Amino acid sequence: MEKKDLILETMLELLSEKKGESCSVSDIAKKAGIAKGGMYYYFKSKEEVFDALVERTYQTIIDDCQKIASAAGKNAIEKLKHLYIHYRSSIISSDLDVYLHKPQNVGIHQKSLAKILTSLSPIVAQIIEQGNEEKVFHCTYPLELSETILSVFCFLLDSGIFTWTPEQIERKLTILVSILESELGVPKGCIDFLNNTYR
Amino acid sequence: MEKKDLILETMLELLSEKKGESCSVSDIAKKAGIAKGGMYYYFKSKEEVFDALVERTYQTIIDDCQKIASAAGKNAIEKLKHLYIHYRSSIISSDLDVYLHKPQNVGIHQKSLAKILTSLSPIVAQIIEQGNEEKVFHCTYPLELSETILSVFCFLLDSGIFTWTPEQIERKLTILVSILESELGVPKGCIDFLNNTYR
Repeated sequence: MEKKDLILETMLELLSEKKGESCSVSDIAKKAGIAKGGMYYYFKSKEEVFDALVERTYQTIIDDCQKIASAAGKNAIEKLKHLYIHYRSSIISSDLDVYLHKPQNVGIHQKSLAKILTSLSPIVAQIIEQGNEEKVFHCTYPLELSETILSVFCFLLDSGIFTWTPEQIERKLTILVSILESELGVPKGCIDFLNNTYR
Repeated sequence: MEKKDLILETMLELLSEKKGESCSVSDIAKKAGIAKGGMYYYFKSKEEVFDALVERTYQTIIDDCQKIASAAGKNAIEKLKHLYIHYRSSIISSDLDVYLHKPQNVGIHQKSLAKILTSLSPIVAQIIEQGNEEKVFHCTYPLELSETILSVFCFLLDSGIFTWTPEQIERKLTILVSILESELGVPKGCIDFLNNTYR
């Protein structure tokens, strides 16, 4: 493993052990088995390690979503569903999430939400365009529809910014399904997985 | 004027003179003509003054929007248009905006966006419900539709989070108009003011 990746993996372990808050650069170096000087070659502070870890985690989610969108042999609705389920499970399983939602990390949190939106929108739009070609979707603005839906997921449904009851979340997802159905021009029921698989 | 309001007005003047960044608690007290000790009775730091000023500014915008929604003698579409134009002009004319978008203020910025969304959504929903009663709108989820639209304004269209060209903004507004038309159940053209009056 590259030394840089080793440092990031170590930081991730510390986070999952709930020691992310209290650990120092020395602690990370010690656990990783790297000299403190060698550590400073890559990262000047714990915050830089954390930033790089967030960047890498989100980049992996985005790369996986791009693979789903570009895969051969699946139709657009199957891909949308696959991407949605993958995205949701990646976001909530992340040990980073707890730390991203702490007040002192609000800057990196907002930056990462913006990155998710700008990176994921063209990927979702690519699937919508495939659906247009398959004559299943009839969507005039694939990119802007993706951005609108992702704004709801990245902002309104972010558990670090708002706190909603399960019933409130269900109502928000119901209108998203309705918006998607009419903007994609599909019959009722086609996009129900948005509501049925949310967790 | 109450001493507390005097301090906030003074902070606002310093912001409009572009001295907000460099000023100290002493500078604010001096300009307001208040003893430094008297100042500390209300605010412990410059950040607290700034937070209170943001809170007050956004509360004024929200109160004005509530008055528009509750006014007698106007139909729902007129009220939506009036509220939209008022909201947009209040947000962009604010001297606070420049400071809210600085990296060190990202926490208070995100908090204020969340406040706008949670406070304004029920107000917009009230207008939609009036439209339902007038049989002009046919909207099943007034609150959730308002939240979805406001998520786009508060997150995707926030100039501190994203940078878009005028053409990109126009496309985003076009799909918002389309979403509103179909979710409100109104004929094409009814909600065009969203696009025509944006600035």
